[in-house]
Amino acid sequence: MGASAELTQVTADRGGRLGTRLADRWLGERVQRSIEAAAVRLELWDGSSSYAGPQPSIGDLIVLDRRTLLGLAINPELWFGESYMAGRLLVRGPLEQIVEALTANAPVNVSWRQRLRMAIARRNSIRHSRHNVHHHYDLGNPFYQLWLDRELVYTCAYFADPGMSLEAAQIAKLDLVCRKLRLRPGERVVEAGCGWGALAMHMARHYGVTVKAFNVSREQLTYARDRASREGLSDQIEFIDDDYRNVSGEFDAFVSVGMLEHVGLQHYRSLADVLRRSLNRETGRGLLHFIGRDIPRPLNAWISRRIFPGAYPPTLAEVTKDVLGPCGMSVIDVENLRLHYRKTLAHWSERFAMAKDQVRLTYGEAFRRAWELYLAGSQAAFATGWMQLFQVVFVPRESHPPSWTRADVYESRSSIEP
Amino acid sequence: MGASAELTQVTADRGGRLGTRLADRWLGERVQRSIEAAAVRLELWDGSSSYAGPQPSIGDLIVLDRRTLLGLAINPELWFGESYMAGRLLVRGPLEQIVEALTANAPVNVSWRQRLRMAIARRNSIRHSRHNVHHHYDLGNPFYQLWLDRELVYTCAYFADPGMSLEAAQIAKLDLVCRKLRLRPGERVVEAGCGWGALAMHMARHYGVTVKAFNVSREQLTYARDRASREGLSDQIEFIDDDYRNVSGEFDAFVSVGMLEHVGLQHYRSLADVLRRSLNRETGRGLLHFIGRDIPRPLNAWISRRIFPGAYPPTLAEVTKDVLGPCGMSVIDVENLRLHYRKTLAHWSERFAMAKDQVRLTYGEAFRRAWELYLAGSQAAFATGWMQLFQVVFVPRESHPPSWTRADVYESRSSIEP
Repeated sequence: MGASAELTQVTADRGGRLGTRLADRWLGERVQRSIEAAAVRLELWDGSSSYAGPQPSIGDLIVLDRRTLLGLAINPELWFGESYMAGRLLVRGPLEQIVEALTANAPVNVSWRQRLRMAIARRNSIRHSRHNVHHHYDLGNPFYQLWLDRELVYTCAYFADPGMSLEAAQIAKLDLVCRKLRLRPGERVVEAGCGWGALAMHMARHYGVTVKAFNVSREQLTYARDRASREGLSDQIEFIDDDYRNVSGEFDAFVSVGMLEHVGLQHYRSLADVLRRSLNRETGRGLLHFIGRDIPRPLNAWISRRIFPGAYPPTLAEVTKDVLGPCGMSVIDVENLRLHYRKTLAHWSERFAMAKDQVRLTYGEAFRRAWELYLAGSQAAFATGWMQLFQVVFVPRESHPPSWTRADVYESRSSIEP
Repeated sequence: MGASAELTQVTADRGGRLGTRLADRWLGERVQRSIEAAAVRLELWDGSSSYAGPQPSIGDLIVLDRRTLLGLAINPELWFGESYMAGRLLVRGPLEQIVEALTANAPVNVSWRQRLRMAIARRNSIRHSRHNVHHHYDLGNPFYQLWLDRELVYTCAYFADPGMSLEAAQIAKLDLVCRKLRLRPGERVVEAGCGWGALAMHMARHYGVTVKAFNVSREQLTYARDRASREGLSDQIEFIDDDYRNVSGEFDAFVSVGMLEHVGLQHYRSLADVLRRSLNRETGRGLLHFIGRDIPRPLNAWISRRIFPGAYPPTLAEVTKDVLGPCGMSVIDVENLRLHYRKTLAHWSERFAMAKDQVRLTYGEAFRRAWELYLAGSQAAFATGWMQLFQVVFVPRESHPPSWTRADVYESRSSIEP
């Protein structure tokens, strides 16, 4: 059933059963005003609307019942996702464009509700971290294989050339990370949060380093170990089923791509301790690649409930002050790849849409709708500057930057092909 | 009189007049212990020493009287400079190497005295700022012409190639700033703190932009206006005798090289207001080039008293949290050029040493010794990681980074020669 046929059907069903009262219309107007600047039209279950924004609107939100309308009025950040996921809020028009317009027009100031959520954020103990990671990353490798690139890299890609494929851009990202770290053959690298092992394998194969790669996702580790073994890299890479807080040993390089968002502010000192004890003070350098913010703000309430429990994208100030400062590290390079993440997410959304029947079949429609919205919402956040993607390179204060300028990162363009 | 002849003379003079008491020897031992790890030997006025560090020592500090010894014991951060300047503390051996060793071995923790100084820092009102700037920058253009490069650029150079001359490296820095800003012909640029105008003239001549350049140093402005007029750039550049807080108008780019250190934490909101109102939200981008820190720490007490009143080198966290966050800017690029400043300062020290007779003649020996130590101490601070040099590029949150990757900064290497 196509989206528009589905809409007609549902609207017809509900419209007959349920009229709107004065209170509904008042609430509807209230919600409509809050999204009018985004040129998004709100339609109630009986087809009524008080839209008075720019003409034409870019799309419609169709509220199917009173409870959903109330949720949107009281706590839109949570209820937009909850009701979209449950199919009680339908979208007529281009989902990505509509979500982007809503995001671009959302209030910039941090609300009391958001402050409260930051204040009472639960600590990510080692047990909770395992649980949180399991919630998201252990959905089954076949699920991620449906829509990620061939290497299964589930972080922002680097489109060295804006037109390159996702496969090429993920390899380009892995290589960019290696070049920024100036890896040399024989060096020892520790990776915190290694996903399916693509970076560890890239470093080992193309830069001749040995890697200790930490992860608490069983599914990912099984896959990574198997692949390393098949590709003859088991001697160079040790995949370790443990929390980043238990990293031991001394290394020339520390790298973490897409883990810091899951650490949580309360544990930055633990991460600082890991960096302090694991990086060689003479030769060491590190790279943190993470989703960040311009100003402190909790993760979207719905994403936090349904997609990434325990996650918090930090500001650059929080990372430099609470992680790098306390362990005596100097920032030597920061790059913001925000629009590269927008493009990465556009690729993922496209692939996810192509796999939608299979996702619906295996995981159910609510799950499919949740992930569709999560991908569209993330794309919107990077498109509008609500979220940033930082790569931060650092060295121990008393050591020297690994390179005199950054020109080498761009001159030694890798010839590695996907 | 050569340094060593001078030392012999002075030591002979004082040694005869003044012996050491038990209290002197006790204090001497105390001071000696604090610098022993740096392999620096302390010698009292009668030639005595309790040095027991690595053999051989890299050099000697010769304390010529009891008051100096007491000062070094109680507040070395201030009294080292005060007594060196006054010639009551002599240095036998390579000054730069000795100061670097002392810096590398200084306590990392921020002392109560330093915390107190940060807490009671005087506000840099517009009047005070003028006074502070006058104190340093209005020493007379001929003074700076003695030891700066031909363009009179008094900030960290960029040695694209480590072996290039200071003249070339300053031009390379000016051009790096322009490339990072991706300046295009016809754009409007505002510069806060323009020194002798070298950057403004480089931007106007090589990038075809118009510039409003602010400065409160009369001497520098007179020089800059005169030069712009001689070089036919007066139509493109307006040099304005005013405080950065009074910037008005809307611009495509904001640039400030070496001013933020003089702003002071209490005024970051004012700077944020300037950025908010002066940068176009669609096309705008900015660059801040400043001396910074890894962790908050006041400027060295002596430098603060004698060289840079009111100055404070901020951390990256302070700049992103208190300047860029509040005015809705996203950091898109940070580069730390710490070792480039070390090299710049080595060049300046060498030139300053060559001009020492003339400096002594015009400004007196105490002034010459103060500046000799300030240059050596700054070089040591950048060599050891006590100070950092950050270039931060930012854009309004809702606008897009001016370039897809950073490769263009390195591919379009300027062919501009000094």
